[in-house]
Amino acid sequence: GEKGLEIESNDGNFKAKIGGRIQVDTQVNFNDNHNGQADHANTDLDNGVGFRRLRLYTEGIMWKDYEYRFEYDWARNGGGVNGITDAYLKYLHFKPFTITIGQMNEGKSMESVMSNNYLTFIERSLPNNAFIESGPNSKYQVGIMAETFEKAFNMPWTVRGGITTESVGAPAPGNSSNNTSAGNTNRNGFSGNTSYQLVGRGTLAPLYSKEDGYVLHTGVWGSWRSVNNNYNADGTYRNGGWQYLSQPDTDIDRTAWINTGNLTKGNKDAPGSFRADEVAMFGAELAGSYGPVHMEAEYMQAQIAGQGYSNQDLLQGFYVQGGWFLTGENRPYDEKKGTWNRVIPHSNFLFGDGWGAWEIAARYDTMDMNTKHINGGSINAGTLGVNWYLTPKVRFMTNWVHIFGTQTGSAGKCTTSATGNDTIGCFNGLSPDIWETAVRLDF
Amino acid sequence: GEKGLEIESNDGNFKAKIGGRIQVDTQVNFNDNHNGQADHANTDLDNGVGFRRLRLYTEGIMWKDYEYRFEYDWARNGGGVNGITDAYLKYLHFKPFTITIGQMNEGKSMESVMSNNYLTFIERSLPNNAFIESGPNSKYQVGIMAETFEKAFNMPWTVRGGITTESVGAPAPGNSSNNTSAGNTNRNGFSGNTSYQLVGRGTLAPLYSKEDGYVLHTGVWGSWRSVNNNYNADGTYRNGGWQYLSQPDTDIDRTAWINTGNLTKGNKDAPGSFRADEVAMFGAELAGSYGPVHMEAEYMQAQIAGQGYSNQDLLQGFYVQGGWFLTGENRPYDEKKGTWNRVIPHSNFLFGDGWGAWEIAARYDTMDMNTKHINGGSINAGTLGVNWYLTPKVRFMTNWVHIFGTQTGSAGKCTTSATGNDTIGCFNGLSPDIWETAVRLDF
Amino acid sequence: GEKGLEIESNDGNFKAKIGGRIQVDTQVNFNDNHNGQADHANTDLDNGVGFRRLRLYTEGIMWKDYEYRFEYDWARNGGGVNGITDAYLKYLHFKPFTITIGQMNEGKSMESVMSNNYLTFIERSLPNNAFIESGPNSKYQVGIMAETFEKAFNMPWTVRGGITTESVGAPAPGNSSNNTSAGNTNRNGFSGNTSYQLVGRGTLAPLYSKEDGYVLHTGVWGSWRSVNNNYNADGTYRNGGWQYLSQPDTDIDRTAWINTGNLTKGNKDAPGSFRADEVAMFGAELAGSYGPVHMEAEYMQAQIAGQGYSNQDLLQGFYVQGGWFLTGENRPYDEKKGTWNRVIPHSNFLFGDGWGAWEIAARYDTMDMNTKHINGGSINAGTLGVNWYLTPKVRFMTNWVHIFGTQTGSAGKCTTSATGNDTIGCFNGLSPDIWETAVRLDF
Repeated sequence: GEKGLEIESNDGNFKAKIGGRIQVDTQVNFNDNHNGQADHANTDLDNGVGFRRLRLYTEGIMWKDYEYRFEYDWARNGGGVNGITDAYLKYLHFKPFTITIGQMNEGKSMESVMSNNYLTFIERSLPNNAFIESGPNSKYQVGIMAETFEKAFNMPWTVRGGITTESVGAPAPGNSSNNTSAGNTNRNGFSGNTSYQLVGRGTLAPLYSKEDGYVLHTGVWGSWRSVNNNYNADGTYRNGGWQYLSQPDTDIDRTAWINTGNLTKGNKDAPGSFRADEVAMFGAELAGSYGPVHMEAEYMQAQIAGQGYSNQDLLQGFYVQGGWFLTGENRPYDEKKGTWNRVIPHSNFLFGDGWGAWEIAARYDTMDMNTKHINGGSINAGTLGVNWYLTPKVRFMTNWVHIFGTQTGSAGKCTTSATGNDTIGCFNGLSPDIWETAVRLDF
Repeated sequence: GEKGLEIESNDGNFKAKIGGRIQVDTQVNFNDNHNGQADHANTDLDNGVGFRRLRLYTEGIMWKDYEYRFEYDWARNGGGVNGITDAYLKYLHFKPFTITIGQMNEGKSMESVMSNNYLTFIERSLPNNAFIESGPNSKYQVGIMAETFEKAFNMPWTVRGGITTESVGAPAPGNSSNNTSAGNTNRNGFSGNTSYQLVGRGTLAPLYSKEDGYVLHTGVWGSWRSVNNNYNADGTYRNGGWQYLSQPDTDIDRTAWINTGNLTKGNKDAPGSFRADEVAMFGAELAGSYGPVHMEAEYMQAQIAGQGYSNQDLLQGFYVQGGWFLTGENRPYDEKKGTWNRVIPHSNFLFGDGWGAWEIAARYDTMDMNTKHINGGSINAGTLGVNWYLTPKVRFMTNWVHIFGTQTGSAGKCTTSATGNDTIGCFNGLSPDIWETAVRLDF
Repeated sequence: GEKGLEIESNDGNFKAKIGGRIQVDTQVNFNDNHNGQADHANTDLDNGVGFRRLRLYTEGIMWKDYEYRFEYDWARNGGGVNGITDAYLKYLHFKPFTITIGQMNEGKSMESVMSNNYLTFIERSLPNNAFIESGPNSKYQVGIMAETFEKAFNMPWTVRGGITTESVGAPAPGNSSNNTSAGNTNRNGFSGNTSYQLVGRGTLAPLYSKEDGYVLHTGVWGSWRSVNNNYNADGTYRNGGWQYLSQPDTDIDRTAWINTGNLTKGNKDAPGSFRADEVAMFGAELAGSYGPVHMEAEYMQAQIAGQGYSNQDLLQGFYVQGGWFLTGENRPYDEKKGTWNRVIPHSNFLFGDGWGAWEIAARYDTMDMNTKHINGGSINAGTLGVNWYLTPKVRFMTNWVHIFGTQTGSAGKCTTSATGNDTIGCFNGLSPDIWETAVRLDF
């Protein structure tokens, strides 16, 4: 049936399922270079086609209380342990209170807690990518997490919190393991200990009626991380540190237009050196739906602390977006996770018997990585999108992204390389338009 | 049942299945070096054992109209996205007319359209490997494809055509993505746009009777590709281009005895430089079966165009082969794809109750990569084979390959390296014999 | 049901199943450096969290006689073919006599023949890791194997033997394939032929009663390997050889404290050079259970032969261990494989209705890699463990490992690198304590 490859025992105590998702995206760029200008060469964004995600998972329940899930993404980070997203054991005995051990979504931001199968836009917002999704700072981390949900006076709420370390697959500096690809060697004596993070999130929906099709959602989340930094005996930097980066709401060409670089740099205690010892993050969420319309806004920040940093080193970003189902669907709310749920078209696409669901949407998002001691650049952008849901699990998306302003940061000054090419800093000051399309299905 | 791990809803609108294939091959070489000669060192082909293919797939149908398929080959190109073969969505509403989006078989040559589970010989022919299967020119490409099949006056025909770009997993120069293994980065600002290809194939079986066990198959296919070539601002070559190569009908040691090298070489517009801008391919197919015998022949060519190339730069190859089922089976024809189908033994192997199907086969194949401006070498070879089909999905194969003549091309002149070893060009003029075996099953 | 995702035809002739395992481990180290000493810098073992194994498999039976199994470990050797454990076809017609073709467990040592799902300690013993599990010497090898089991006078016995080559995924020198990651190239003309091994094992349980809960197990195994060694034409070493190594019973930080290095070293026939031509291995097993207690001991050795080696180059190791189920379970014996089977708790963990099974265990293990011509170091260690089996397939483990003595070998002399760091030899003489925990489930 619609559940796909799933088997369940008669008493319901055992379940097992296989599923996955396929996402094929395209990108075409306009005004994406300075080539007309005298002092610029030939650097631009790529047009192209590619896979955004290619995932398979297996999940199940054993002896009623023990849930497991293992998911792998073949389009993620080039193979090996790098493609693992979920790999955990969840203890269900005290449902809705559960405890999860293994690698899982750390649980920041309603947009990142939500499955990418339900995204309104092809890419999550700039702050979601910079703070949670992209680069070394993977949201899938090994740890232990407790979570629960309930209703108080008919208002659904959720709480979760836990301790996580690093993602097994993230690149450095977010992952301090050396030699992940060597023969059966997970770590060696020169990687340093694993960093760790305390993380939590709470949500409350003060207004909610599934029947009448409306919800008002509020949420906050925060985290504190102790960063792994390692120096050699002579004080030179060895490994570790922290970093934030994001592509400009793009999909196929994911060049990081904003990028803090490694926030730990220079030799130990040397003048002018920096060491990111701690990172404190905070986010606030506001979202709602009423009949066919829905809106969503989030603010996120990260405060860097450590040698060379001050309380003015606060990275910030936010987005606000809205959508309208022309075909009248209400965007469903997931009370258990405190975020949106899968859109079910009133009718599937079937030539006259139904045209699926159609949605138009708009978003403004901005991310600022320029602080007193960090010059990572900034972007602000607008996106218009149209989504066609042929069935609950098959849809076509198209987005038009306009970058209002790009500042690629001091690390990205526009220079010319030995081969005469522009460097990444030459994207500075561009206001490109980007046309993206996506075919996305899960099963 | 025989379908393996498959689940189907009662109304047939939903299906899901898991399957795969395991192929273990061996190779032993004779007369594969010039070591006896005064001016030659110690280069020869390897004897060995290895996996030819290790694939798992999941496929299914959702809401009757939406078919998906995802297949991965663990023995292909070393992991990550490189091992992906199929990853597509197929729209079935207008069956037999279908539209496919994602990565799929581009559909050239009846031998390459056909599943490798049904091959008569352990390896496909030299032109199949050179033009379609091996190296950067992978037959699994991302794109969109329409196809249909029908009968006209009892003559089955098929037509397919589409536009494809590159394979997500092919090595350069066939794939212009840089940094495929970097953190969540599909492409970057220096890869250049994706190349693209128009491709089509048509087949007609003027004589066909499933009941009486005969078929006469004819087919043609063609393609035109715009090649991605990128130069730096100072005119030096950056990336892109095109290449054909093939091993000498071998399996374990896949050293490319014929190899055009990158057809784009040298700096931009420099004297003596080459730039492959376009590649036009064409192929013709003829095949037939009558009772227990079957034959098959294909001709293929590729015309290179662009700076430095002329219309005399035409690469060509063909093969002709025949087989005879000693146990009387007729090789089945797949009307829907215009190629051969799976052999079903009259009886499975069961000690006296049945000995499976036994087949003997012979092939002559040749591939010439020497043209006016390309000196990629040439091979012509003969193969004798015996196949034992224990069940429809388990079989043993053995091939004896004799290379009649090898010319490894100017790029492969026989020289001696700093360590005293022969280079690849020292295989020139060899006429080795190669004994190959294979255990192949799918499930 | 408990079997998970399994489908079986009504006549039982066809079966198909998907399963897997998830293992999350942690490690915290004490007294793991010499940092207090004047001549030492900052080398220690890492504390951390990671995945020990992340496996999925599919297996099945077709036409009653043909069993297949394909298993992949995402935490093994960094992706591609490297993560393949099992990939074989097994012919069942003459059960219990079977023939297996493909990649499979070579079958040495009762502890390594046994599934790691049933281990008493978090890591197998030092000689198991050094001789069978770790580094280039992977126990999963491509080959052909015959095996059977029977009872004689009520005494279960097993015999197996076969010929294997190399593991498709092992790193050099255990695997002589070059370019495993290149485009569709399994091997090339410079890898040399595959090495091969003859291997066999026999077991006998002179006392055995499943009902009364006791067993006495004895076993021997042996192997002889012809090693692949390749030299260039000028006599310099090219590739091949053999190597043994092991981490100190650790799990997350797997730094090889004992390590022979490549046993083939130096130029061909040069004075002082070594060439490992042959390796002969032998092992003896003794184990037993009586009610809730069980014990197990194994001795293993490897004799190196070839240029530069003498019959005094014998590597040796052994371990002895015992366990006691506080909750009264008897450790089951697997008559078919001649090793232990899965522990089934008398009652699953369910708050008052059952507390699962609890087991305490102790082990002493030692491995000596110092011989006349090999100075690989030695370790002897003791481990105390507590296991909590919540269900037959979910358990928590914790181990306290104390290293009694470490000698890291001549290759690991303690020196200081250019950056002022200690080298691996500076672990010499340490007696660290290591606290390990594990969450392990299979499905």
